[in-house]
Amino acid sequence: MPLKYSTCNGTHTKKALLSDPQLFEDQFDELVTELTKRDLNDPVLADALNRLREVLVYNAPGGKRNRGLSVIGSLRELLPPSQLTQDTVQRALLVGWCIELLQAFFLVADDIMDASVTRRGQPCWYKKVRLGLDAINDSFLLEASIYRLLRRHCRDQPYYVHLLELFTETSFQTELGQALDLMTAPPGQIDLNRFTMERYKAIVKYKTAFYSFYLPVAAAMYMAGIKSEEEHNNAKHILLEMGEFFQIQDDYLDCYGDPAVTGKIGTDIQDNKCSWLVVTALEIMTPDQRAELEACYGRHDEASVEKVKALYNTLQMPTLYHKYEDESYQRLQKLIARHAQNLPHSVFLNFANKIYKRNK
Amino acid sequence: MPLKYSTCNGTHTKKALLSDPQLFEDQFDELVTELTKRDLNDPVLADALNRLREVLVYNAPGGKRNRGLSVIGSLRELLPPSQLTQDTVQRALLVGWCIELLQAFFLVADDIMDASVTRRGQPCWYKKVRLGLDAINDSFLLEASIYRLLRRHCRDQPYYVHLLELFTETSFQTELGQALDLMTAPPGQIDLNRFTMERYKAIVKYKTAFYSFYLPVAAAMYMAGIKSEEEHNNAKHILLEMGEFFQIQDDYLDCYGDPAVTGKIGTDIQDNKCSWLVVTALEIMTPDQRAELEACYGRHDEASVEKVKALYNTLQMPTLYHKYEDESYQRLQKLIARHAQNLPHSVFLNFANKIYKRNK
Repeated sequence: MPLKYSTCNGTHTKKALLSDPQLFEDQFDELVTELTKRDLNDPVLADALNRLREVLVYNAPGGKRNRGLSVIGSLRELLPPSQLTQDTVQRALLVGWCIELLQAFFLVADDIMDASVTRRGQPCWYKKVRLGLDAINDSFLLEASIYRLLRRHCRDQPYYVHLLELFTETSFQTELGQALDLMTAPPGQIDLNRFTMERYKAIVKYKTAFYSFYLPVAAAMYMAGIKSEEEHNNAKHILLEMGEFFQIQDDYLDCYGDPAVTGKIGTDIQDNKCSWLVVTALEIMTPDQRAELEACYGRHDEASVEKVKALYNTLQMPTLYHKYEDESYQRLQKLIARHAQNLPHSVFLNFANKIYKRNK
Repeated sequence: MPLKYSTCNGTHTKKALLSDPQLFEDQFDELVTELTKRDLNDPVLADALNRLREVLVYNAPGGKRNRGLSVIGSLRELLPPSQLTQDTVQRALLVGWCIELLQAFFLVADDIMDASVTRRGQPCWYKKVRLGLDAINDSFLLEASIYRLLRRHCRDQPYYVHLLELFTETSFQTELGQALDLMTAPPGQIDLNRFTMERYKAIVKYKTAFYSFYLPVAAAMYMAGIKSEEEHNNAKHILLEMGEFFQIQDDYLDCYGDPAVTGKIGTDIQDNKCSWLVVTALEIMTPDQRAELEACYGRHDEASVEKVKALYNTLQMPTLYHKYEDESYQRLQKLIARHAQNLPHSVFLNFANKIYKRNK
């Protein structure tokens, strides 16, 4: 059964007045109820479903929701208003939540693997549970929720099987990216020889760009009936470029962003992260500078961190970054002009405008 | 692209002479090659795909393969020989491997959560890798391989979407069972009040019976074109009963089996497992006996273990078990007579004959 919404005019009118972020927010409680109550009336499961509820409430909301909101955002560009019925909008919001659940699944698991401490301003989920390791199964429950929601809400849609394939394939790509990341920068093992630009780009593409950029737009495309491989490849081309830029910017802001604006204090240097800054710096530094970097990178004492930052400044990383940013933006405009073809450019430009020149 | 098999007569003849277990065995190397080579020619992924290969080779084979072989076994009962083309047989074997991969996914993760040491006569996978936690992502890769294989080999089949739903739903059920198990018998926390028969049966049903018993037969049913909910519910009814019996037998053999025959030394008592033996014993013991059990269960010293075993003997657990076994077998025969309906009884009887009265 699909989510039930009151069909009285009052509710419809109210819904029509709400913005997409508000509609998205409103849908969450209903999804939690649905995932933990209906359809599973085996009373002996109550404890397990209560656990699922806790896991969902703690881990699924709380992000910026750009990914989730991109589905409805893209669909509004792809379909004429007459085809954007309330049911269609609700389904696009739901698919958006599925992307947020996919991210929650990865973040819960990544935090265990990376031994992280906080996430989105609260303790990581695995820090809250017995020994931390039960959180592994909790991450599985988040993933499984995706397919339960798709089944309940999209089963009769012509794009159902495409969404199933899109989510499973994107999961695999992200997991390959995580595997590459873990072997390139294993927590606690510092080896700068592994930090090449080629490896960096592969990690970004697989671990982040597919699920954060291609997935939401591709989902909207399937929902709009666009399923040709060529059109998807074109969109992928553009969106993976954007994803790469987004991550490079994230890496830059980790060191050079204003914590008062970004809301977080970067620790990529301390955490031995394979960041764009260190990879780019490695490409241009002298052997002496490299020796210094090797002595300081991945260490937690303030003196070491400051030395790395001083080295970045000596190498003019901010200038290099801004040059990269401008070039990437130009490249993207060209990609959109060349590859967007039948797709409205606004799908990509809206995205691009949100991320270029951001400072948080 | 589907797996390629030589179409020369020699190969066909040879294949026709091989037993299902041999065909199953032969298919594995090809699947590994396919999952780690073809279709992903991004050279920068080589390291990640090598990792996937290691994970597959270490974790997917090595079990008894009853689950995997049940798909082709059931399909042979459901389809007339004329419809069992070589392609159909190969696809059934492949779906069987998907079940083995699903199990490998769960076992790799469960071993981390349970802090297990060995599995199938070798160290648990997480014991082989850095800090153990990278194995979490490895378990994800095993799961993702299921959907890549189904997509490549079954995409054009009318039952494709049913298999996707069957695997995702079964995963969710198994994860609910694992959640229940973790909260009922958390490693290191002994509380016999949680060990009720109702809870025991729920854990067995969700954590084991769905994926081990219903999944392979249900997959074969979909492949044979049987998709009515009623027929699936009937099969489920029978197979979950079998799954419950299988686990109870497993619990019994853990304590009373001959290690020379079973090939393993049971540690359920030491590991504070919510086993049929302890749950049944709790239902019939005196308060004094319970006090003794509470002092000894879940402890690793030999004296405690022997006391628990002596208590089981005093309570005549072997007699109770054999009584249960006979009753379960009778119940199953009735269930098959009543519920199998259009389905050939042999689908269920073959299964039953493999597990009842086994001693390993």
